[in-house]
Amino acid sequence: MANNKTSIPKGTRDFGPEEMAKRNYIFNTIKDVYALYGFQQIETPAMETLHTLMGKYGDEGDKLLFKLLNSGDYLKGLTDEDLLGRNTLKLQTRLCEKGLRYDLTVPFARYVVMHREELQLPFKRYQIQPVWRADRPQKGRYREFYQCDADVVGSDSLLNEVELMQIVDTVFRRLGIRVQIKINNRKILTGIAEVIGEADKIVDITVAIDKLDKIGLDNVNQELRAGGIPDEAIGKLQPIIALQGTNEEKLDVIAEVLKTSETGLKGVEETRFILDTLKALGLVNEVQLDLTLARGLNYYTGAIFEVKALDTPMGSITGGGRYDNLTGIFGMPGLSGVGISFGADRIYDVLDALDLYPKEAVASTQLLFINFGERETAYCLPIVGEARKAGIRTEMYPDKAKMKKQMGYANAKGIGFVALAGDNEMTEGKVTLKNMATGAQKLVSVEELIQEVRSQG
Amino acid sequence: MANNKTSIPKGTRDFGPEEMAKRNYIFNTIKDVYALYGFQQIETPAMETLHTLMGKYGDEGDKLLFKLLNSGDYLKGLTDEDLLGRNTLKLQTRLCEKGLRYDLTVPFARYVVMHREELQLPFKRYQIQPVWRADRPQKGRYREFYQCDADVVGSDSLLNEVELMQIVDTVFRRLGIRVQIKINNRKILTGIAEVIGEADKIVDITVAIDKLDKIGLDNVNQELRAGGIPDEAIGKLQPIIALQGTNEEKLDVIAEVLKTSETGLKGVEETRFILDTLKALGLVNEVQLDLTLARGLNYYTGAIFEVKALDTPMGSITGGGRYDNLTGIFGMPGLSGVGISFGADRIYDVLDALDLYPKEAVASTQLLFINFGERETAYCLPIVGEARKAGIRTEMYPDKAKMKKQMGYANAKGIGFVALAGDNEMTEGKVTLKNMATGAQKLVSVEELIQEVRSQG
Repeated sequence: MANNKTSIPKGTRDFGPEEMAKRNYIFNTIKDVYALYGFQQIETPAMETLHTLMGKYGDEGDKLLFKLLNSGDYLKGLTDEDLLGRNTLKLQTRLCEKGLRYDLTVPFARYVVMHREELQLPFKRYQIQPVWRADRPQKGRYREFYQCDADVVGSDSLLNEVELMQIVDTVFRRLGIRVQIKINNRKILTGIAEVIGEADKIVDITVAIDKLDKIGLDNVNQELRAGGIPDEAIGKLQPIIALQGTNEEKLDVIAEVLKTSETGLKGVEETRFILDTLKALGLVNEVQLDLTLARGLNYYTGAIFEVKALDTPMGSITGGGRYDNLTGIFGMPGLSGVGISFGADRIYDVLDALDLYPKEAVASTQLLFINFGERETAYCLPIVGEARKAGIRTEMYPDKAKMKKQMGYANAKGIGFVALAGDNEMTEGKVTLKNMATGAQKLVSVEELIQEVRSQG
Repeated sequence: MANNKTSIPKGTRDFGPEEMAKRNYIFNTIKDVYALYGFQQIETPAMETLHTLMGKYGDEGDKLLFKLLNSGDYLKGLTDEDLLGRNTLKLQTRLCEKGLRYDLTVPFARYVVMHREELQLPFKRYQIQPVWRADRPQKGRYREFYQCDADVVGSDSLLNEVELMQIVDTVFRRLGIRVQIKINNRKILTGIAEVIGEADKIVDITVAIDKLDKIGLDNVNQELRAGGIPDEAIGKLQPIIALQGTNEEKLDVIAEVLKTSETGLKGVEETRFILDTLKALGLVNEVQLDLTLARGLNYYTGAIFEVKALDTPMGSITGGGRYDNLTGIFGMPGLSGVGISFGADRIYDVLDALDLYPKEAVASTQLLFINFGERETAYCLPIVGEARKAGIRTEMYPDKAKMKKQMGYANAKGIGFVALAGDNEMTEGKVTLKNMATGAQKLVSVEELIQEVRSQG
């Protein structure tokens, strides 16, 4: 019996053949679109120095970093007092010099700084790699998961924002997922906070506004009051809370409210440019201005995006925005960027829920040759070679097993065609081809075999 | 100025756009061939429990495992005596429960055991993922590197060995690398040791034989004598040391020498079957029987393979063999397997040295639109969209920068065509297309643009 202790670390996953085929379908779709827009792939090491990682994700993030015990005598340099002090936070940076990457953004910033001499700006890079977080595992939250990021650094042009929205639109069109793209701008939020004189309450305000549909205007205002926002500010907020209509109508109302805030008006202007340009280009999916969108508020400085699937309940499946000073943390200021990140695990679940995987995407072997023994196999092997030369994914069953077992193998692997050759077939220089879906069998030449299997994809 | 402390852990690497394109070319070539032969991809987590990893790679391997410090209070359960004992080997398994995978074989064995209920045997899997070893970094030896393994488990048929050699032949033919495939069999080596009565000296013997070309027969015999092999045994070895001729001729000599060893004759028979079948199928690259091939001797139980590039000096670029009892270490005995592993880093260097990367493999953006300002951009963006719809990797330069800078960007990225639109072009509904290789410019319609760029790949 197998050892019961055989297991994998909690929060991690094995991906079997079918899951891998589905995941590759998602990754390849995203990669193809990134490449179509001129983004180039990079990869960074799984491990970074703790100097690079620590202090970049807040205290909580520092705790959730996976740290690698130093090789050799990792206790060297630690006094008995150090050890008996049992200060785990302090000791860990003495025991460990390296950690696993927590996201792709900090390694990318480190990459840009290290390779700045050889980079051509604007630099459009994409990166699809796993990240690790020592989070408490939950349904849908893993300790190892892939991120699929694209960023442009070294260009302030809003055309980058436009392109990223086009990329989002194209990826989900290709995947067949209908989505709503939400857009906001950090400068508009800053403008609102400025106008009502409550700069530090902007998160509370967006949280309250977000509840309008559920709890109604009176309750939203009550919540704002309870949150310590003065009546005068709440008064000024009314047109923003009640914001409705098309994106253009909304922007007109916001521009009026923010007329005294330079930053706010800049945000309106940026958003107008992005939305107008996208309208002219004609996306398949709707882009909606949503002031309650406030993801990563401390991080983003301009446009903010978020994407939700329309036909199945799921959180955000893609997000991003513009940030200033990506590389400032590594001593290289003044480089702004804008990026998006596709949530591969959630996109996987959406495709599963809506049954949207194309048959070809998960197809494995197309043709299996039955093994009747050494003589038959010697006859079949050159034909197997011909089929492969024609690009058909082909297997010869390696063992002379019972027919039932071999057919069971074909069924379990979802193989579309089975080929057999006994004395008859060998005499005629042909094989019998069975279509596993219809059960139909016919005697065919090698050329006919190839044509038949190919015609079924 | 950038922070001088910005660095990556020694022995690890960043892969920039060109390196990634080249690496993807290698990985995709291998993946395509694996899939053509009915192998399916799996992935396992970067981290495994130390229970899974420890004791599988010898004492040295245990030391070279990267271990992850436990989250939270990692000192919990350790007494003051434990700490002050400073037994780093013993303490590390208390401080750490998980480590990074060291190869793909042990995680695969663990995978097979954990998923045995859902697996269809024979199971043909491939896996392309990084592994980590805390080795002393050297030229060509990294602490993070990719392995590209394919294995068949659950089938004793020698057709699997044949297929793996076909895969090797096909991969290197597609990559354009001329190789020599060397094959040996552990059973033959065991037979030799049996016949000469020196079972424990087999490694010394193969090492000595391997020097024949360099030091000559007399010196080889002297080295064997110095190694403690009795004269009688050395006498019996003479036909083996002097082994020459075709594979068939060599096998005949070996069969004669090993006529009293059942195991040895089994090895001869296996090798004969593999070589005969491959001969009938007609590989592009030569397969040569080489008795000095003894890689991983303790691990392999049947066929052993190794591949070397013919046109540039480099160690083994691919290797593999048959092993019994892959999953026995996890309490699931009786499952045999055979596998190969392509050395991606060395293959990369071979392709570089021989300048064998196809131009398309490293091509990035095909077409760049110059940005002359907002009006021109608005005119160009729909054309950019058309080009992308036609599958052309296209960029619009995001900023209205100096012409020289934009052309410099095109040159640095190796972009083949640049498109421009000023007043003239906009009036005529066309663009000017410049071929960056020839310098030729012409005024073209959108359709002509697409045709022209496509025709250049």
